Amino acid sequence: MLSPSPWPALRVTYFVTAPNQADLDARVESLLLEQTVELPRVALRDKFVLENIVGRLVSVEAMDADKHRVIIDFPIIATADDPAQFLNVLFGNSSIQEHVMLADFDLPSDWPGRKKTLPGPQFGIAGLRKIVGVPERALTSTALKPIGLSNERIAQLCGLFAQAGIDIIKDDHGLANHSFHPFIERVRACQKAVRDSNRASGRRSIYVPNLTGTPSVVLEQLKVAQDEGVGAVMIAPMLMGLPFLTEIVAQHAKVPIVGHPSFGGATRIAPELLYGKLFPLYGSDATIFANFGGRFAYSKETCGRIARAMTQPSIPGLTPTLPMPAGGIKYSQVADVLSFYGREVILLIGGGLYEAGDDQALRTRAGEFVRHVAEFKK
Amino acid sequence: MLSPSPWPALRVTYFVTAPNQADLDARVESLLLEQTVELPRVALRDKFVLENIVGRLVSVEAMDADKHRVIIDFPIIATADDPAQFLNVLFGNSSIQEHVMLADFDLPSDWPGRKKTLPGPQFGIAGLRKIVGVPERALTSTALKPIGLSNERIAQLCGLFAQAGIDIIKDDHGLANHSFHPFIERVRACQKAVRDSNRASGRRSIYVPNLTGTPSVVLEQLKVAQDEGVGAVMIAPMLMGLPFLTEIVAQHAKVPIVGHPSFGGATRIAPELLYGKLFPLYGSDATIFANFGGRFAYSKETCGRIARAMTQPSIPGLTPTLPMPAGGIKYSQVADVLSFYGREVILLIGGGLYEAGDDQALRTRAGEFVRHVAEFKK
Repeated sequence: MLSPSPWPALRVTYFVTAPNQADLDARVESLLLEQTVELPRVALRDKFVLENIVGRLVSVEAMDADKHRVIIDFPIIATADDPAQFLNVLFGNSSIQEHVMLADFDLPSDWPGRKKTLPGPQFGIAGLRKIVGVPERALTSTALKPIGLSNERIAQLCGLFAQAGIDIIKDDHGLANHSFHPFIERVRACQKAVRDSNRASGRRSIYVPNLTGTPSVVLEQLKVAQDEGVGAVMIAPMLMGLPFLTEIVAQHAKVPIVGHPSFGGATRIAPELLYGKLFPLYGSDATIFANFGGRFAYSKETCGRIARAMTQPSIPGLTPTLPMPAGGIKYSQVADVLSFYGREVILLIGGGLYEAGDDQALRTRAGEFVRHVAEFKK
Repeated sequence: MLSPSPWPALRVTYFVTAPNQADLDARVESLLLEQTVELPRVALRDKFVLENIVGRLVSVEAMDADKHRVIIDFPIIATADDPAQFLNVLFGNSSIQEHVMLADFDLPSDWPGRKKTLPGPQFGIAGLRKIVGVPERALTSTALKPIGLSNERIAQLCGLFAQAGIDIIKDDHGLANHSFHPFIERVRACQKAVRDSNRASGRRSIYVPNLTGTPSVVLEQLKVAQDEGVGAVMIAPMLMGLPFLTEIVAQHAKVPIVGHPSFGGATRIAPELLYGKLFPLYGSDATIFANFGGRFAYSKETCGRIARAMTQPSIPGLTPTLPMPAGGIKYSQVADVLSFYGREVILLIGGGLYEAGDDQALRTRAGEFVRHVAEFKK
C-alpha cells in the first residue's frame, strides 16, 4: 500500500471477484492501470505519468470467499474536467470485465473544476416542492400511458389525474414523438388539461413530458415544453448519454429534470451508485428507480440506500433530490411504501391505478391514492 | 402462439432465465408488455393499442434447464422512428430485470423510416480501405498513450508509428481535452506528424483523435478535427449516448467513425449484438471490441460472431464495417489473430508494442508488426 495520494483523488470502490490470491492481485493491478494509462506497468516510462496519472491502491478487503472490496485513488486531473471522461475513469474499460462491479466513489473536496464539470441538479427537493406547492408530505405521481392512445385521450387522462389531485403527472417513458400522439400537440393538450384543473382546484399539479431523440431533437422538445410552461421534464440519461444531461442542466433547462432508469441495465454498477449518486450528480432533480417487491429485483435494503443517497447526498454541496420508486407498486402497498421511505419521496403509481377499471373507477382510485398520502402520518 | 404479426415487426430475441414454468410464463408476459405499453394486460382497454402496440410472442424454446430463447415481435411503429425510442423498445425497462438478456433483433424489411432513423455507417470497410489506401490485406492500428504525456511526445509517437507503416493511429480513449495535452494542439501536432511521414513514405496512415465531452463539445471537436484533415474520429457511443451517434453521422461527420466500447459494460446485451450490430447500425464504421485471450472475457466464438456481424451485416442494405479486436493482443499473437479473423480486420495493438522498450525498440517492433500483417497469407 502506498502513502496517501499526493494529489486530489477520485476515490473509487470496486467489488472484484477472484478465485484466488494470484488472480486477485492481477485484477487489482489491472484496475490500477486500465482506468487511466491502459498500458502494462513495464511500458510506463514517463515520470509525470507514473507519479500523477496511475491509480494508487488504498485498500483491499475480503467481503466473502471470492469477493473483495478494492478501493483505488485516481488523480482527479485524469478526468480533464469532462463529464464523459469522468465516467471513463470511473468505469470505462473495466465495465467490460465481468469480474468488476463499480460500487461507489467519493469526489475530492478540493476539485476546482467540480461545479463546471458536474454542476448537479438545479432544483432538487426544495425546488420541486415549491413548484408543486407541497412543503411537507410525500408527493404523488402517475404516468400517462400506454403508447398508442390519441393525444385527446392522453390529455383527458392528464386532466383526470390532476382533478384527482396527483402532483406530478408524467408521460410514460415510451411516449416519444409518435405519429398517433405527436410531441408538440401532446404537450399543449396536457398542459391545457393541468392548467384548467389547477385553475378550478387551486392546486399546482404539473405535467412532465418525456424528452427523447438525438440531442438536437431533445433540445427542441425542451424548448417547446418550457415555452408551454411545463413544470418539469423527464429524460432517460442512459439512453441519451449522461454527459448530455449536464449540458441540458447547465445551458438549457429552466425546469427540474426527472431521470428515468431505462436502458440502465444490470450494468455492473451498483444501483445505489448509478441512480442514487450518478444521476443526481449529472443533474437529475428526481430519479425514478425500480421499487422493491415490484416487477424488478432490487431488495428493500438497496432501495433504502438509493433513496438515502438522493435525499442525503454524500457529495458536499450537492442539492438533495427526490427518490421516485416505481415499477409495479400496487395501490394496496401505498402505506407500506410510505412507511418505508417517509415523506421525502415521490410515490409513482401507474399500472396500480389503471387496473382499477373505467375512468370513473380510475378517478376514484387516483383520488384515494392522493388522500392516502395526504393523511399519512409516520 | 399468435398468427404472424399483421404489422411490420421488430423481431427481438431475449434469453430469459426462469426456475420453473410459472415464472417463465410470467416473465414472458411481462416482456410482452414492459417494452411498449408498460401496463398490466387487464388495464389495456384501447382497441388500437391492443391490436397494434402490444408485443406478440413468436416462440419460446428451452436452451437449458432454466434458460429460454424467447422471440417477440414488436410493432416498428412503437419506435416512433426515433433512435432513442428504438433502444427503449429493444431493452428499455427490461434491461433492469436481471433475468433478461437482449440477444438479437431483426428489423422489418418494410420499415419506411429506417434510413431516416438509423442511417448506419457512411464509409464502412470499402470507405476506410480507400482512405488508408489498402485494398486487401488486414489493416494495422495502434493507440497513442498514456494519458499524461505532452502533446509534443504524443505527436512524436504518432510520427514514429506512421513511419513504421501503421495504418490507423488512434488516441487512447482516455485522451480527453486534458490541460497537459489539450485537444486542438494535439490534433494539429499529430496531423502534422502523419502528414510529414506520409509525404516521405508515400503511404496514407491516418491519425484518429478521440472525441469526448457533452454533445456541443464533441461537435466542436469534430469540426476542428475535420478542418485539420483527420482520416477518422473515435467516439465511445455508450458514454455519449447511441442516439447522438446517429446525429453525428447524419448531420456532421465527413470522416469514418471508430466506435470504442468504453462504458459498454457487461450490460446484459450480447456483445455480438451490442458491438456487432447496434454500434454499426447507429453509424460506427469500425468498432473496437475486447479480443479473446486478452484482458477481457469474451470467448473466441463470441469474437467470431462479433466480427461476422460487422463484416457480413444481417441487416439488408447496411454497409459492412471493420472489426477492430483489441485489449491485450500480444505482439506474439499477431499470426494467430490474423488466422482467426482473416483480412477483413483492423488489428489494434497498443501495450503489446509499447512493452518493447525505448523508442528504438518501439519503432522496430511497430515495423515488424506492419510487415507481419503485410506478408501474412491465410
